[in-house]
Amino acid sequence: MINIAIMGHGVVGSGVAEILINHKNRIEKRVENEINVKHILDLRDFDVDYSDKFTKDFNDILNDDSVSVVAEVMGGVTPAYDFVKACLQAGKSVVTSNKELVAAKGAELIKIANEKGVSFLFEASVGGGIPVLRPMANCLAANEIDEFWGILNGTTNYILNKMIVDNMDFDTALKLAQDLGFAERNPAADVEGHDACRKVCILAALGFGKHVYPEQVKTEGITSITLDDVEYADGFGAVIKLIGHAKKQADGKITASVRPTLVSREHILASVNGVFNCVVVNGDQTGEVAFYGKGAGKEATASAVVADIIDAIRHDGYKKYLNWQDGEEDYVVKDFNEIGKYYITLKGDDYSTLKTEFVAAFNNCFESYVMNEFRQEIAILTKEMAESEVLEKLQSLSHLKNYKILHTML
Amino acid sequence: MINIAIMGHGVVGSGVAEILINHKNRIEKRVENEINVKHILDLRDFDVDYSDKFTKDFNDILNDDSVSVVAEVMGGVTPAYDFVKACLQAGKSVVTSNKELVAAKGAELIKIANEKGVSFLFEASVGGGIPVLRPMANCLAANEIDEFWGILNGTTNYILNKMIVDNMDFDTALKLAQDLGFAERNPAADVEGHDACRKVCILAALGFGKHVYPEQVKTEGITSITLDDVEYADGFGAVIKLIGHAKKQADGKITASVRPTLVSREHILASVNGVFNCVVVNGDQTGEVAFYGKGAGKEATASAVVADIIDAIRHDGYKKYLNWQDGEEDYVVKDFNEIGKYYITLKGDDYSTLKTEFVAAFNNCFESYVMNEFRQEIAILTKEMAESEVLEKLQSLSHLKNYKILHTML
Repeated sequence: MINIAIMGHGVVGSGVAEILINHKNRIEKRVENEINVKHILDLRDFDVDYSDKFTKDFNDILNDDSVSVVAEVMGGVTPAYDFVKACLQAGKSVVTSNKELVAAKGAELIKIANEKGVSFLFEASVGGGIPVLRPMANCLAANEIDEFWGILNGTTNYILNKMIVDNMDFDTALKLAQDLGFAERNPAADVEGHDACRKVCILAALGFGKHVYPEQVKTEGITSITLDDVEYADGFGAVIKLIGHAKKQADGKITASVRPTLVSREHILASVNGVFNCVVVNGDQTGEVAFYGKGAGKEATASAVVADIIDAIRHDGYKKYLNWQDGEEDYVVKDFNEIGKYYITLKGDDYSTLKTEFVAAFNNCFESYVMNEFRQEIAILTKEMAESEVLEKLQSLSHLKNYKILHTML
Repeated sequence: MINIAIMGHGVVGSGVAEILINHKNRIEKRVENEINVKHILDLRDFDVDYSDKFTKDFNDILNDDSVSVVAEVMGGVTPAYDFVKACLQAGKSVVTSNKELVAAKGAELIKIANEKGVSFLFEASVGGGIPVLRPMANCLAANEIDEFWGILNGTTNYILNKMIVDNMDFDTALKLAQDLGFAERNPAADVEGHDACRKVCILAALGFGKHVYPEQVKTEGITSITLDDVEYADGFGAVIKLIGHAKKQADGKITASVRPTLVSREHILASVNGVFNCVVVNGDQTGEVAFYGKGAGKEATASAVVADIIDAIRHDGYKKYLNWQDGEEDYVVKDFNEIGKYYITLKGDDYSTLKTEFVAAFNNCFESYVMNEFRQEIAILTKEMAESEVLEKLQSLSHLKNYKILHTML
């Protein structure tokens, strides 16, 4: 008999409890053992069939030696970090959906789990119900991963999709996402890119072997994206997506970013709509491989947590491969000067002079541009060039008032 | 020290040898042991660095007790079946990329492997380098899978893509695919759907737990698809793809098919271009999850074989879950009358009478249609209806000479 504890009975936690209780037989067949949800930790009271399992005291779990697997689905770093650490140190396996915790403390918690010979699993922390971490860690075992791109946040993808498909402006789309429960009342973690940033940290750590901390990732949200941008992008054969990206450099260091990016309509990431997520991984042997599915939602996330619980019980070898070292301070390159095609919009204090200056400065280095007389604005798609070169050219425009630069996958 | 044998030194086999030899260190780190390619079985002679490893006699592998893992990459059922069976019975783990073998003999070989306590792994048999079987078997452990759809053959997807994007007719596109090495001189296995059919068998067996044999899958190739169909489909907001599909019915039986299908442009499968493959799996908890990547190619397939070799060496628990029973004769439903939207083209011996008859018969049950005066043809997209009802209506058209019906995902 395997005794399981669940810490947190919110959206995901209640989903985990429901699967473990309602689909007990199915799971017992898979783990070849009886299972029992023994404790559920939450400070709130709930009117559910299994209300006898609740406790408000973490020590009921920590000190119960019969509990061997703990699911942490509280979210946040405090007190989750202390609780998880204590459980691992007490020799209990821990599975979690908490990306904030893994992005901040992953390397340390993995180390403790390894020392204690227990599992620390977190498939649900990236991509909700999509199996991403396991395939990356295990199935691509014969590959070196050198780069990945992903749509890692369902909320922002939903908002951008509404802007693209329904011509809805950012504020209206955000409000709709909030009304439908896809976005929080305080949407900053999503729309400012912080949530996607944490997932980039976890994917990069797993893919490249060293911890990447959220503050090392160049992070930009989608709040500056307007319907004009969406329209210009469309003219350039692209859609705007919030893309998490990390790449191994020749010297072993990495670059990591989250930012709104023009994605070619031909690319598989362009067809990821609504709240769906997708991670594209480039392996040296397989080429591009992608994993796609619902990145959030109670059932999807809870089922990923339960899959990890099953794994922790079976003690599959894979846990060894969910393993990374702490990173050095300069492991993630700070200011990287990328070569690529850039999307730029320009406004000036004198539109007709700006046009003349623009043509002189960007002569021969744009692929396409739009002179928008009505908006008194120029939108450009450059040829491949260094970001520094773009900035230099922009500085040479004496009538430039403001501009916006976005990266592209074109 | 782990001794490995490779049976077959064709495209995939040489790729496996190259990875095991050139990336020895990387793999040894992953299996925490030394590895050694001891024998390579092939009747041909090769001028390679490792030519001392070749043998033409299978018994050199079978009778070498120091060989614990064998990669079968010969293809075909004979003699691969006899060789694999003998290796498993001798207590050696076998990994294979041979979909024909797994589709024909999977249940039996799995049974032998289980009895002998060794691994029989075949990730590379479906989707080349894309991890599909593992995620289905392992990561979705908390789900019941009730349906899947897939683009499972890169050659036909390449041909259809050329027809859709470049307006190239079938014969020209096939010839181009042959010239580029994407299609065989004898393309029947691809264009008639047999290759995709075998992959449906393997996915269905794994997803639903019982063996499905190729002859039980309703299989239709793409040879009847014309540029006219591509154009009509476009008008209906769809692209034509060769879709493998299987679904669990309420009574526990399943339906399984491979056929050209109109796929909505909004669906992720519509954006799978060129030789790429994609499998969409519907789990009861996660909803739709997709796996995407290059379905063929030397490096991609070889890397999947090597990943299985690594797994076989590590004896991961996952092999237990690559497990299915033999199926009963009536397990796969023979003539199923599906409800869906149907795409139909009609030609008659008297076009104007056919038009009148068509409008009378299909009144209120089409979503859209095209009366093509120039081709003297009608193309229809029906509303949701049973296939039997469609056929009934067609029979009522006395001036109908010939017609084509395709299924849709619309």
